Amino acid sequence: MPPRPATPRRSPAPRHATASRRERHKADVRDRLLRAAFELFGTRSFNATTVEDITQAADVAKGTFFNYFPTKELLLSEMGEHRLDILRAALAEAQQNRAPLRDVLHRLLFAAMDEPARSRGLSRCMLLGPLSSEPVVSVAQRTIARGRQILREIMEIGQRRGEIRRDWPAADLAFLYQQEYFGALYLWAFDSNLNLPRCLERTFASFWAGAKVQAGNSRKRPS
Amino acid sequence: MPPRPATPRRSPAPRHATASRRERHKADVRDRLLRAAFELFGTRSFNATTVEDITQAADVAKGTFFNYFPTKELLLSEMGEHRLDILRAALAEAQQNRAPLRDVLHRLLFAAMDEPARSRGLSRCMLLGPLSSEPVVSVAQRTIARGRQILREIMEIGQRRGEIRRDWPAADLAFLYQQEYFGALYLWAFDSNLNLPRCLERTFASFWAGAKVQAGNSRKRPS
Repeated sequence: MPPRPATPRRSPAPRHATASRRERHKADVRDRLLRAAFELFGTRSFNATTVEDITQAADVAKGTFFNYFPTKELLLSEMGEHRLDILRAALAEAQQNRAPLRDVLHRLLFAAMDEPARSRGLSRCMLLGPLSSEPVVSVAQRTIARGRQILREIMEIGQRRGEIRRDWPAADLAFLYQQEYFGALYLWAFDSNLNLPRCLERTFASFWAGAKVQAGNSRKRPS
Repeated sequence: MPPRPATPRRSPAPRHATASRRERHKADVRDRLLRAAFELFGTRSFNATTVEDITQAADVAKGTFFNYFPTKELLLSEMGEHRLDILRAALAEAQQNRAPLRDVLHRLLFAAMDEPARSRGLSRCMLLGPLSSEPVVSVAQRTIARGRQILREIMEIGQRRGEIRRDWPAADLAFLYQQEYFGALYLWAFDSNLNLPRCLERTFASFWAGAKVQAGNSRKRPS
């Protein structure tokens, strides 16, 4: 997920005003470049998209691109990192031990779908990544594998706390969660009639029905 | 799913021997053409695949193609119909009222994954279809929409029999089932280390945990 532009301050401290305006501008340009690239990789492909296509769509000068991303490939890796940041934030929340794991995982599903929900181009880009050619396929597969590892850590926290069933390995629960997410993303990417919030609510309820501690099963070891 | 070649009879009735040999041959050629097309549409694309590519890969004479499929587009529709036949068989089984709905839906998940499990080319073809260009995208979207309708009828039978929860609309349950399927297909298509049978068992268990009649909820009306 590309970073949002920093929220404009109403009364910026005069000493930092220039720096923060410059930072906001940088964040804004970076955001526009990432979004334009997301859309283009989704509608055509990574290899068919030039840096010039991206800068034109983002309405910035071509040379500017390289101030932000030394190569098109690095922009791609950064996209993956932004997706993983959403998962890392959920892991940090789980580690803080303040909210029920159910709520953390529920929020995470909506947070992960937030950007794709605004752009079918991005949804398509994310879905096609692992099925396309190099270098996209490697970045996408690595991102998914690392995402599953983070999810696994979240599930383990839930198991230790007795909020998630222990008779299924945390790795399987992480896989199921990721599967629900990609299944929803997939059906969303081409069904324009889909009521996404409703679909995500059902998706989460269905996942949680299987993942929560089942009656009489809470003490079993992973099978 | 392309039809399997008819099982060779050990002692064919002499009167029908010639006809059945001819029929077996036809079924075999048709099967080879469909499989070759599946693989090619998955590795390159529908539009980049020529009839000659398909006949070469299937090892049949080029002119033969048109005896089986008047156009490449019709072959594509036929692929969709074969996928739907798997769902129709499950609906017929549900209507016969002999097996618990849980077992019908469990078998269906494995049956639907049977062909893609043997070929990542086919998995990719099925996944890329709805995200690609015409005419593939229309055929794929229609197939998925009709598939969901058949699943909905199966869920309704389960609700009437009191085996599936009634507080969720059958359409939502059909959507969830399809989502689990595409999620599994998706993660399978590019993760060669995936233990698919194990993954499908968990997938089904997770789906069923949400779909079965929930304690205290069996009489509620759809929300």
